[in-house]
Amino acid sequence: MSTASKEQVEQLAEALPRGDRRALARAITLLESTRAEDQDAGDLLLEKIAPLSGKALRVGISGVPGVGKSTFIESLGNHLIAEGHRIAVLAVDPSSALTGGSILGDKTRMEKLSQRTEAFIRPSPAGRTLGGVTRHTRETMLLVEAAGYDVVLIETVGVGQSETAVAEMTDMFMLLLLPGGGDELQGIKRGIVELADLVVVNKADGDLKAAAGRAASDYRNALRFLHPRHAGWEVPVMTCSALHDEGIDEIWKTVNEYRHHMTDSGELAQARARQAKAWLWDEIAANLVALAKESPAVGQLIEALEDAVSQGVQSPRVAARRVVDHFATNERGD
Amino acid sequence: MSTASKEQVEQLAEALPRGDRRALARAITLLESTRAEDQDAGDLLLEKIAPLSGKALRVGISGVPGVGKSTFIESLGNHLIAEGHRIAVLAVDPSSALTGGSILGDKTRMEKLSQRTEAFIRPSPAGRTLGGVTRHTRETMLLVEAAGYDVVLIETVGVGQSETAVAEMTDMFMLLLLPGGGDELQGIKRGIVELADLVVVNKADGDLKAAAGRAASDYRNALRFLHPRHAGWEVPVMTCSALHDEGIDEIWKTVNEYRHHMTDSGELAQARARQAKAWLWDEIAANLVALAKESPAVGQLIEALEDAVSQGVQSPRVAARRVVDHFATNERGD
Repeated sequence: MSTASKEQVEQLAEALPRGDRRALARAITLLESTRAEDQDAGDLLLEKIAPLSGKALRVGISGVPGVGKSTFIESLGNHLIAEGHRIAVLAVDPSSALTGGSILGDKTRMEKLSQRTEAFIRPSPAGRTLGGVTRHTRETMLLVEAAGYDVVLIETVGVGQSETAVAEMTDMFMLLLLPGGGDELQGIKRGIVELADLVVVNKADGDLKAAAGRAASDYRNALRFLHPRHAGWEVPVMTCSALHDEGIDEIWKTVNEYRHHMTDSGELAQARARQAKAWLWDEIAANLVALAKESPAVGQLIEALEDAVSQGVQSPRVAARRVVDHFATNERGD
Repeated sequence: MSTASKEQVEQLAEALPRGDRRALARAITLLESTRAEDQDAGDLLLEKIAPLSGKALRVGISGVPGVGKSTFIESLGNHLIAEGHRIAVLAVDPSSALTGGSILGDKTRMEKLSQRTEAFIRPSPAGRTLGGVTRHTRETMLLVEAAGYDVVLIETVGVGQSETAVAEMTDMFMLLLLPGGGDELQGIKRGIVELADLVVVNKADGDLKAAAGRAASDYRNALRFLHPRHAGWEVPVMTCSALHDEGIDEIWKTVNEYRHHMTDSGELAQARARQAKAWLWDEIAANLVALAKESPAVGQLIEALEDAVSQGVQSPRVAARRVVDHFATNERGD
């Protein structure tokens, strides 16, 4: 679908809550389009479905490649469907455009789950910047919620600031770890452990079962040194074997405890309001900057000043004022 | 000084590198002024001194109230002066306007140091927002560097996101801790430990000496679980007694090791370039938003949309486009 008329948008908006998967896929593609005419249609669609969104539990899942995210999501997804949920699996992976396709949200790695009608799996949007990918994923999240999926899982693999972005669009952030344990958090970027509301050591089976238990204990001790992210919630460290579907229901039970705690205390609603507002201001600033860059003269000025500022020969304050003055003058002179 | 002419700015720019403290104080005040005529003078001053800035080692110092920051800075400051340095002590404390004055950078708490001509101490700029205070402190840092201070210490007390802001304007981030140790990091906000390049347990004297040693050991173990912030630099955990001037020279020796390591690897220069560029974009976005808000109609629209977005009834994407479209229309219609 390249261009959508007002009627087509209305049809999409009506088809979504009926569980029409093809309508959902078309809606997501429409929102990802950068064509000017599609932007208006996309805006209209978002306005129509906004009252239907927000009703899912949003969980971010992070872990290094090899920790078993796909296996875990498949196991968890099947468990949730058995409990009556409808789950959507999204991903944030800004490198996908460079690596020729993301391994996140890859249906071939979640084969059984991808065949369930109660599951909707979408790979990371292709994008060069984290900001762009984040924006699309957030909007897709609103769409799948309007389509009735009541649990949204968002995968991230740890490129750049993906984790922070995913933590800032979800209600709960889960970190999967390998049972290797030992002294290092296996290349976990500093800052990610601190985002976690739940830590899970996977592959707790066979030879690695004892090691997984020890690793969990080590991480539990390390976490005691960090001030809690949310008052009154001590971050649990659990083990599981996604491959053998062991420990998965306990994990989801814990997720529910977290949800109840955060809902009762009002923190969930507060966090969502804060996230939405921050997203708004990101968008306003990004749109203003895009508007400024529309002028070739301003774009060139920005490039030249960026160099000067990086080398420390011009102060950012002065450089920024020049950019904005130039922009304001251009706008008014048109 | 309320309004500065071009000649006055040139005089200030010449007086600064001569070590003229009154000129420095006037220059700082000029940059903090929000009057339009002072903005131009401030810009001119920054342009003139830019080539002279950047030559100090910039160290952020954080810790809860009561950990002994003032005593530590006084002890460290005197040590540095004895080694031939000239030190500036600044502070980031956005709450100061609300609490009627900041206790950070308070000369009465660093009495001996404040009497040394080789030390320049400036309390946090008053400001309601972290962004404003951060901006002023960064500009003041450029001025004190142009004035020949070769070590800049920036205090922060842990309000909101002050630590991240200070970490993003310094070369090294130091965290002071109490010897209480035990299981909790005494109310240290999650995320701050992860910013530290050096951790120091203070008050390691008398009855608390053994406890301080144990606390340092505990923190050392906890830190091993975090991926290093900078490759090749294992964050040391040291003890000291600032009150008795013990351990201070070892601490500064370690700071120098860090500096050499980061300079040799090129990371110091890279970090500075990244910080300057990020500052530039913060300023560009802030200036554009300020420009947009100049229009009362746009300001009101933003407020209304913020509410709608917080409540989840409007998507940020659509709201932001409305703001920017309204702004662009207004600009062109003038």
